[in-house]
Amino acid sequence: MSLLVVGSMAFDSIKSPFGEAEQIVGGSATYFSIAAGYFTPVRLVSVVGRDFPEATIKKLSARGIDTLGLTVASGETFRWKGFYENDLNVAHTVRTNLNVFEEFAPVLPPEWKDTPYLFLGNINPRLQLDVMAQIRKPKIVALDTMNFWIEKSPDLLREAIKKIEILIINEAEVRQLTGELNLVRAARMLMDAGPKRVVIKRGEYGVLHMSGNSIFAAPACPLDTIFDPTGAGDSFAGGFMGYLASKGDKEISEADYRMATVYGSAVASFTVEAFGTQRLESLSSDDIAQRVSLLRSLTEIP
Amino acid sequence: MSLLVVGSMAFDSIKSPFGEAEQIVGGSATYFSIAAGYFTPVRLVSVVGRDFPEATIKKLSARGIDTLGLTVASGETFRWKGFYENDLNVAHTVRTNLNVFEEFAPVLPPEWKDTPYLFLGNINPRLQLDVMAQIRKPKIVALDTMNFWIEKSPDLLREAIKKIEILIINEAEVRQLTGELNLVRAARMLMDAGPKRVVIKRGEYGVLHMSGNSIFAAPACPLDTIFDPTGAGDSFAGGFMGYLASKGDKEISEADYRMATVYGSAVASFTVEAFGTQRLESLSSDDIAQRVSLLRSLTEIP
Repeated sequence: MSLLVVGSMAFDSIKSPFGEAEQIVGGSATYFSIAAGYFTPVRLVSVVGRDFPEATIKKLSARGIDTLGLTVASGETFRWKGFYENDLNVAHTVRTNLNVFEEFAPVLPPEWKDTPYLFLGNINPRLQLDVMAQIRKPKIVALDTMNFWIEKSPDLLREAIKKIEILIINEAEVRQLTGELNLVRAARMLMDAGPKRVVIKRGEYGVLHMSGNSIFAAPACPLDTIFDPTGAGDSFAGGFMGYLASKGDKEISEADYRMATVYGSAVASFTVEAFGTQRLESLSSDDIAQRVSLLRSLTEIP
Repeated sequence: MSLLVVGSMAFDSIKSPFGEAEQIVGGSATYFSIAAGYFTPVRLVSVVGRDFPEATIKKLSARGIDTLGLTVASGETFRWKGFYENDLNVAHTVRTNLNVFEEFAPVLPPEWKDTPYLFLGNINPRLQLDVMAQIRKPKIVALDTMNFWIEKSPDLLREAIKKIEILIINEAEVRQLTGELNLVRAARMLMDAGPKRVVIKRGEYGVLHMSGNSIFAAPACPLDTIFDPTGAGDSFAGGFMGYLASKGDKEISEADYRMATVYGSAVASFTVEAFGTQRLESLSSDDIAQRVSLLRSLTEIP
């Protein structure tokens, strides 16, 4: 079933201890769409400037990602410049130029208003609320956010979080959002406020997926080649939501949620193996299946 | 089968975001012995001062921990004062007074020289080498260390590591010891230098257990009550080695190593629930079994 994502598309300039890349295509919606596209049809809502390569948009379309909701605005594409030190879990921002993203006001094509699965990428919570208001009775809505919005628009963010099923968020943000250091208690506080699930991204330590009656810990794949963690969280979310959407009308079980978490982790593990979307966009279903097996053997208790 | 541990016994003064405790009994050998004692007979080699409570030594003996190798020297017991900030994975030292530990020269009782399982706690690598030289054909030797020895005695430490089967070490120390940021490659470098296994402690993120042909990731239990992480690593090592020693003469399989890792994690998860050894020393076999079940359900992939 269709999965709609709203989020950023960008040019990233990235430096990590393992190399650097200048002005490569990135953005949360880009990573998300490519990852989700391995599992389900994707509807992409975003904005780019006239400087964004048309070939990239065509490549996305060719992957089954519907770009009807992608606006090409006059002006420059969103740009991010950042670096990682030895701790790859922490991205340091050097510069952010919102450019066309500053005026972004997502309007959904009318034929998309019944999309059953919705992912609200890390954008202004006001826009996240706007998008939710445009969708009729979605089956599952998941939302990501970041420290910037937690600080700048905490009330709107809380309002948005109230309306969703799944909060996908990183560890530091869980603590910042709740003011509670203990992760288990923090997740419970968040679930009391709306979402039925809190999926906590912990970078190289994997994911902690919490729901009312279950906690699932999925490790990240221990890799001997890591270049760039940018986009790993968005790729995880893409694989996770893509897998759920592939279940269609079926009621989603706890086992499905666990497998979605595993598939999300498997897909994200490729993203970090190269700068940008390079590795992520070249996966076979065998590649993904092998990494799912690796995650299985990694955690198997005899 | 018997398990011999050599390590520190101490008075700790600890502050964490969740409270504080003054001059409580701690030390790597203390946590290790109590944890291991749930699985196997333990032989304790350490030194304390005359100020160390005799009642505590009696309590250890009553648990089946043989204190024949514990010296009570004139002088004061080793003291450590430290604190944790929000990141409980990092201990900040305020003061260390080695006291009687400064002159510690472990001499094993003659009847202990055939002990099959040996754990060399985090002490001067020269002493770790001394103790190994006193043991005849041990079945398994494991060793822990810390940044202090990596900086101060890298050559002796490398010499000690060459002779062991299992290196139990925390994540930052793996990187420091090898100069390699990537954990998988760092572990391989260490295994090339001697040990067949590298068991990497990652605090609240659990343990990564690496051997030549297998990687096992055991999460830590997500707990809603954490007071003090002091001793968690030593308790893990105690549960881990205690479980292995309980296998006796039997050849130890990969499955046994995995279960040892799980039991170590289970036991360590209790240590952090209170200051000092308070919670760790009051476990029933049911308590431990329940937490092993929790770890199973936490990682189970459908």
